[in-house]
Amino acid sequence: MSPIWVASAEVRTPAQLASRALTKPILTPQAQDFPRWYQEVVAKAELADNGPVRGTMVIRPWAFSIWERLQQELDTRIKATGVSNAYFPLLIPESYLRREAEHVEGFSPELAVVTHGGGKQLEEPAVVRPTSETIINSYFAKWINSYRDLPLLINNWSNVVRWELRPRLFLRTTEFLWQEGHTAHISAEEARTFALTILTDVYEQVMRDVMAIPVFTGSKTDRERFAGALRSWTCEAVMRDGKALQMGTSHELGQNFSRAFGTLFTDRDGQQRHPWQASWGASTRLLGALIMAHGDDRGLRLPPILAPIQVVLVLIKDEPDAIEHARRLAAELRARGTRVEVDDRTDISFGRRVTDWELKGVPVRVEIGPRDLAKQEVTLVSRAANAKATVAIAGISERVHETLRLAQAALLEQATKLRDDHVHQAVTIEEAAEAARDGAARIRWSALGPDGEQRLAEAGATVRCLRRADGGFLEDVDGAEVEAIIARAY
Amino acid sequence: MSPIWVASAEVRTPAQLASRALTKPILTPQAQDFPRWYQEVVAKAELADNGPVRGTMVIRPWAFSIWERLQQELDTRIKATGVSNAYFPLLIPESYLRREAEHVEGFSPELAVVTHGGGKQLEEPAVVRPTSETIINSYFAKWINSYRDLPLLINNWSNVVRWELRPRLFLRTTEFLWQEGHTAHISAEEARTFALTILTDVYEQVMRDVMAIPVFTGSKTDRERFAGALRSWTCEAVMRDGKALQMGTSHELGQNFSRAFGTLFTDRDGQQRHPWQASWGASTRLLGALIMAHGDDRGLRLPPILAPIQVVLVLIKDEPDAIEHARRLAAELRARGTRVEVDDRTDISFGRRVTDWELKGVPVRVEIGPRDLAKQEVTLVSRAANAKATVAIAGISERVHETLRLAQAALLEQATKLRDDHVHQAVTIEEAAEAARDGAARIRWSALGPDGEQRLAEAGATVRCLRRADGGFLEDVDGAEVEAIIARAY
Repeated sequence: MSPIWVASAEVRTPAQLASRALTKPILTPQAQDFPRWYQEVVAKAELADNGPVRGTMVIRPWAFSIWERLQQELDTRIKATGVSNAYFPLLIPESYLRREAEHVEGFSPELAVVTHGGGKQLEEPAVVRPTSETIINSYFAKWINSYRDLPLLINNWSNVVRWELRPRLFLRTTEFLWQEGHTAHISAEEARTFALTILTDVYEQVMRDVMAIPVFTGSKTDRERFAGALRSWTCEAVMRDGKALQMGTSHELGQNFSRAFGTLFTDRDGQQRHPWQASWGASTRLLGALIMAHGDDRGLRLPPILAPIQVVLVLIKDEPDAIEHARRLAAELRARGTRVEVDDRTDISFGRRVTDWELKGVPVRVEIGPRDLAKQEVTLVSRAANAKATVAIAGISERVHETLRLAQAALLEQATKLRDDHVHQAVTIEEAAEAARDGAARIRWSALGPDGEQRLAEAGATVRCLRRADGGFLEDVDGAEVEAIIARAY
Repeated sequence: MSPIWVASAEVRTPAQLASRALTKPILTPQAQDFPRWYQEVVAKAELADNGPVRGTMVIRPWAFSIWERLQQELDTRIKATGVSNAYFPLLIPESYLRREAEHVEGFSPELAVVTHGGGKQLEEPAVVRPTSETIINSYFAKWINSYRDLPLLINNWSNVVRWELRPRLFLRTTEFLWQEGHTAHISAEEARTFALTILTDVYEQVMRDVMAIPVFTGSKTDRERFAGALRSWTCEAVMRDGKALQMGTSHELGQNFSRAFGTLFTDRDGQQRHPWQASWGASTRLLGALIMAHGDDRGLRLPPILAPIQVVLVLIKDEPDAIEHARRLAAELRARGTRVEVDDRTDISFGRRVTDWELKGVPVRVEIGPRDLAKQEVTLVSRAANAKATVAIAGISERVHETLRLAQAALLEQATKLRDDHVHQAVTIEEAAEAARDGAARIRWSALGPDGEQRLAEAGATVRCLRRADGGFLEDVDGAEVEAIIARAY
């Protein structure tokens, strides 16, 4: 059934040679200069542009379409936990932020402040939300009165602004898009369990099963904790340059905000209590992760589940027979729900078009040309496998689907291998620091501790997360042997 | 097949009497004080709250869930026209707005201005987008070079801020959610046709077929035109108090912005030309329309297509037999894709629960109680028809579906009749002004003109739109006999 794959470089039709000649110089190789590769792929695959206000970004249609699918995958799973979406205002009175001491200290340096509205100076300046704990809690205080009102499970998809001094598109931007969930619970245990459910059943699952990115889940150290939280949980991935990227966080807030905002509920026993809370978020930073976890020297490689176009049918020449075959195949694939594009722009060179589809990361390419067609064949190219095969037209639709299925799995497998190769086992702090120079390391937390963490920080590496060394259930991290994942991070 | 409906008021079981006793005073009647009714229904149905910064709003889960469905319906149709979604920054340098003279004049009084970012005063203040023509056009200038780049069809779902001195939830808020589409075309005709396609195939269709609200489509007068447009097109609806509401607009921008931003393309003939443009938007104001077009003295009445819950099964008493029937019916309905809730909160009075479901506008209610069940019956209540019927349990699922289908149609029919009753035919300006006191009027534009428009404005009424009196195709409005729709407006 399955086609015989040939490594792409061994095939030498003139069109392919032309393609390679153009492909080679299109991007700075990752091994040569990874940050530059990143910048180039973001620009050339038309993913994003810098906005006019420092650190802001324009998300172009190709990247936005990926984001829409990612949003949908997250949103469905968020709703499955019982959460409802709502919308809270962009503008927050400055005084709200001051109500929780640690929180305001964490966010003050990053705030954008509106001082004038409707042609007048405002009596009280308003900040553009950097996150919404304060404003949402001021409503929770109104809405929560009884244990019957709990749990209150709210999520808000929105834009937030945090002034960024060293911006990088998708990874650190002054404005970004995200979802922030805010929940209030009847007990500390319930809040904690909910924070972990989001971490594993929403975030980790989407990252692994949709984005094809394996992540380490664990808790943040005190040093890396969210401003105002008792404990922060995180999903951390390793990029192709060995650096770590924080992909989503979930926080146990305890009663910090419910005390600060005076939120009280009457419990079953008639006592007034402050609810226990959690908050959790994931952002357009995930697009940066997708680029850096899978992209290669030819451009993006998109997991089929997220690809705006899953299969492109490229006509080599403008011929009635080829056009007819392309249309028929496109119709067959679309009938099965596959997202297909027919590229019949034969006035642009074949090589240039191939280069562009590789840059954009389309998972499967079918090349339809006269010589293959004469033999009732087409060429099938998998971007994930970086390999091509000549296959019979009969049953091509099945083969395309098989290739898509394999591509999703292959990307996860490759990313997992890459991560495992990058994460070295360290025993001493020195070894960990050394490993973190061009990769990551695992080390026993008992061998590191807050002092070791400080020393690593001076060497440019951070503790990405603490987790059970035996792979046991996350929540029990306290009692078990704990390891720290160390890395340089984005 | 269909149940025998009985006007709800004629039925007098004790539970229903209790229900009515509570229903009566829950809202100020519309006829007594419509603005107060609106304010109360928004609060009591838990649709929205005022935000802490003047004029902003919190959209609560029930309303947000309606908005999500509305977004989806709009988004699908927008994409079907070939448009791609993208995201442009919230913050726009102040100088961008000044580039198009009429545009900045229109928006200056409403701007929110960020003067400080990251703890420092900004060199150039940034405005929070009131609309994105200026920032989007600065990118169109970069992206458009050749006729091959056209048409460029972009849509952005976002939040915008326009400082509002007389805010009203959903209708006029300092921050609101919307989509704004921006397109660039090779000719004036293509831009105009596209603006009209959005008006009729997206906006009018969603309003009529999804929201069950009939609209007048037509062009705005010069007086009511969008700041910077050559011509504005609009969808106007009549609310239950006789006032008009602008529900969506689409603008022909000509070359105003492409000239201001220096956007040029090389045409097929080798000449450099400025593209012709359109922009179009619809917002959370639509939620206000939905409330005021269908709501009655008991609360909301939601069209089934948009209702977060389409059918509520209300248990009168906590009995195993009733619970069993409710579960079975819920499963049957869900299997057909219906959104169902089982209300088994029998510790809250039946009357109070019924009142709440009526307030929230759930289209169909099934009351399941011991007396009916003894006869193998349940009570089926249609919110749109405001009527109830006792029906056999056998085949209940079919009947519920039929009731939902009829409800969607009944709301459109009622809203159409209401609109037609409110819009009087006027011959003179005096008649039009008189009619607009508590309703709307049609009058020949040749009998009104800009002078008459000014006189009406002094009397508090505006020309909502100009349209062909013979009902002919919208675009040909120039040559045909034109009528003006006059009304007081939100």
